[in-house]
Amino acid sequence: MKLLIILSATLLSGLSKGQSNFARDSAMVSSIYQEVLAHGECHENLHFLCKNIGNRLGGSLSAERAIDWGKSLCESYGFDRVFLMPVEVSHWERGGVEKGSYKTSGKTVKLPITALGGSVGTNGKITAEVVAVKTFDELKDLGREKVEGKIVFFNRPMDPLAINTGAAYGNNYEIRGSGPAEAAKYGAVGCIIRSLSTADDRFPHTGATEYQDGFPKIPGAALSVVDSRALGQALQADPHLRFTLELSCELLPRVQQHNVIAEITGTEFPDQYIVVGGHLDSWDIGEGAHDDGAGIVQSIEVLRTLKAIGYRPLHTIRAVLFINEEFGNDGGETYASAMKSEGRVHVAALESDGGGFTPRGFSMQGTDAQYELFRSWSTLLEPYNLFAFRRGGSGTDIGPLKDDRVALFGLTVDSQRYFDFHHSANDIWENVNKRELEMGAAAMASLIYLLDQTGIPAE
Amino acid sequence: MKLLIILSATLLSGLSKGQSNFARDSAMVSSIYQEVLAHGECHENLHFLCKNIGNRLGGSLSAERAIDWGKSLCESYGFDRVFLMPVEVSHWERGGVEKGSYKTSGKTVKLPITALGGSVGTNGKITAEVVAVKTFDELKDLGREKVEGKIVFFNRPMDPLAINTGAAYGNNYEIRGSGPAEAAKYGAVGCIIRSLSTADDRFPHTGATEYQDGFPKIPGAALSVVDSRALGQALQADPHLRFTLELSCELLPRVQQHNVIAEITGTEFPDQYIVVGGHLDSWDIGEGAHDDGAGIVQSIEVLRTLKAIGYRPLHTIRAVLFINEEFGNDGGETYASAMKSEGRVHVAALESDGGGFTPRGFSMQGTDAQYELFRSWSTLLEPYNLFAFRRGGSGTDIGPLKDDRVALFGLTVDSQRYFDFHHSANDIWENVNKRELEMGAAAMASLIYLLDQTGIPAE
Repeated sequence: MKLLIILSATLLSGLSKGQSNFARDSAMVSSIYQEVLAHGECHENLHFLCKNIGNRLGGSLSAERAIDWGKSLCESYGFDRVFLMPVEVSHWERGGVEKGSYKTSGKTVKLPITALGGSVGTNGKITAEVVAVKTFDELKDLGREKVEGKIVFFNRPMDPLAINTGAAYGNNYEIRGSGPAEAAKYGAVGCIIRSLSTADDRFPHTGATEYQDGFPKIPGAALSVVDSRALGQALQADPHLRFTLELSCELLPRVQQHNVIAEITGTEFPDQYIVVGGHLDSWDIGEGAHDDGAGIVQSIEVLRTLKAIGYRPLHTIRAVLFINEEFGNDGGETYASAMKSEGRVHVAALESDGGGFTPRGFSMQGTDAQYELFRSWSTLLEPYNLFAFRRGGSGTDIGPLKDDRVALFGLTVDSQRYFDFHHSANDIWENVNKRELEMGAAAMASLIYLLDQTGIPAE
Repeated sequence: MKLLIILSATLLSGLSKGQSNFARDSAMVSSIYQEVLAHGECHENLHFLCKNIGNRLGGSLSAERAIDWGKSLCESYGFDRVFLMPVEVSHWERGGVEKGSYKTSGKTVKLPITALGGSVGTNGKITAEVVAVKTFDELKDLGREKVEGKIVFFNRPMDPLAINTGAAYGNNYEIRGSGPAEAAKYGAVGCIIRSLSTADDRFPHTGATEYQDGFPKIPGAALSVVDSRALGQALQADPHLRFTLELSCELLPRVQQHNVIAEITGTEFPDQYIVVGGHLDSWDIGEGAHDDGAGIVQSIEVLRTLKAIGYRPLHTIRAVLFINEEFGNDGGETYASAMKSEGRVHVAALESDGGGFTPRGFSMQGTDAQYELFRSWSTLLEPYNLFAFRRGGSGTDIGPLKDDRVALFGLTVDSQRYFDFHHSANDIWENVNKRELEMGAAAMASLIYLLDQTGIPAE
């Protein structure tokens, strides 16, 4: 430990903006990894969030508790400033009733289902025949004649050929995001979908769905992969089987909650900001461990680590725990518009919202000059198994910050397991590996350090 | 599927040794990934091996069943040739009794333990005071005076700072491999070690230990990480606490078992071999899912995939399921010496023995020219998230093949979770992710294809 302090003291003398020094940066990255891997607190913090607060949908009492926890935790670390930013968030509740079943050959098959986020309830039970399709085109071809009065079942598997599972998720996003809205256009009375999941199990996966103005709002729910396959087979044997759906969910008036913001003040450019963040809310099943408890505890760990190794940043570094990404991105939108109206310059922002899996590198949105600088850091970071330095999306929460100046980054993690857990009751702390989570936090702290040192150029 | 067949037919016309063609190779790698990800059978095969055969220590009846299974499976795929190679293997049995406990403050604490592979039994119970050390130097400093008649406890944690957990394992290897032998030099009556594990849980991890000629053989066993920490604390409170160890394990006479070898015959160089393999045996607790069931089913999947896409290799490609890597490397040694005495030229060999985790790339042992060629494939493979093309070890089983001609490769997988499971009762099928396993198999098949096409140069 003494070695570290001496090392840090040496390193911290003579730092100035724009100065590039491979040996210095390399030693600093090493210090960061040592701190996180030997003294990391993010895994323990995630345990508290998952087990003592649990899932925390925007607008809920549980989200309120998570905000209190985030603020208290940051205050306990003694960061320079911790404060709350008011955010008006949507508020949807699942309610206590969620049932799905179908009858075939005189037998009733009950199956686990989960209402899609934002769905209307069924107001009692809905029982109807089921029409199974894979695409919106198939639905259109069937037309109102064959759809009216029925429950539409989007039974489209995730594409196994996508190397990164996010691409498979992207391909199927529409059946969850717009499935009920599309089905309603042809007179359907309900909509069920195959979960956007890579796991061959019985966990249904929720997530936001949106209605379209001018069409009825019909209830939407997801079935697990195993149950979707079984229902698909049952429908082939008995096309007239009847499905019964009962959901008690409802949309409530918007309420005020808060983004949590913690800062280490910059020594040279205190009014220029570098943000690291994730979203504090989660869907209301499971524990929101990977999505996005991981990003939250990692973002806090970045600040904790920089402070622990005695690093004083040039720019003000902010951990932002955004509220309500899942159902409206209210925290991200509010933060960006507040920053714009206050005229606060953001140099860079980094988000972790791909789960607490082993990190692969980063993706970035920015200018060519910013990208070249970013690429140049790969040799520093390859010893830590960070190889992917690609152009691509950053994160939903920080997305609204995009302007000509700011460079946006996303932590790229290995994606193979993410959609096994995402938005399901199986997204629990036990499925997050301590070392993988810590490797992500250390990678993030390293990038934030490098961004701070170079003050990544505007052009 | 039709597209694939047409594509393959196009690709296969005009192939010749040494021809390098990015577009052709790129299309072939894409075909390989498509086949494995859409029609892969390795995850299902692993399920059978783990659940219907289970763990399979060299010399055991269960290993014999695994050999039968491997041969039958390869035959069912219709490879050109499937045969067994006799191997004389060591034979150690755990027996039915394995107990550990200690008494402190009048209370008896029982804890799960596992005998180290190759350990002698206790021949009844051993009860003695415990002397805890971290290193062999500490043991030496204590000397015979403080060690004689006691149980030595090597309580050295895995180094969390190692980025790749294999390095931490390497650092601690000696306490398992030589701990009992070293303790015996100072008159200890038994040896217990902290498991070489990255998991903070109660699973003890076994593995081979070796005795030294001229010193007594004393029994050795491993405790879990949690129990090691607890025992360490108990010893601080009560340095004279007594530990009781009871093990029924014993070394039996060597027996004959077999390597399983499956081939697709080369069209141009049938007498030149490219090997892909792993080890069929496992330790005798858990299911040997990651270690090394994964490598076995991946190696078979490589041949299945090349056959399924209609690829006819130039060289003879062999999947070798080596027997008894864990306790003597008998299969690997026997294979290499048989090949040398038969004068069979091996062009390249690839092993998967790091678990069925997400692949990162490959490591290689070979000449500079071979390494340069290998590096040149990185652009082909980066779209599949394979970035690590490094010099380094290959695999224990294929290691004895090393000569001036052959290039050896190891599949590099993400190492963060491996030692959570390795050699423990928790190394079970449920902890292997289907997509991660398949990504590894596809990466391996791609490398084998490239090696076959170029016939990697001797110099």
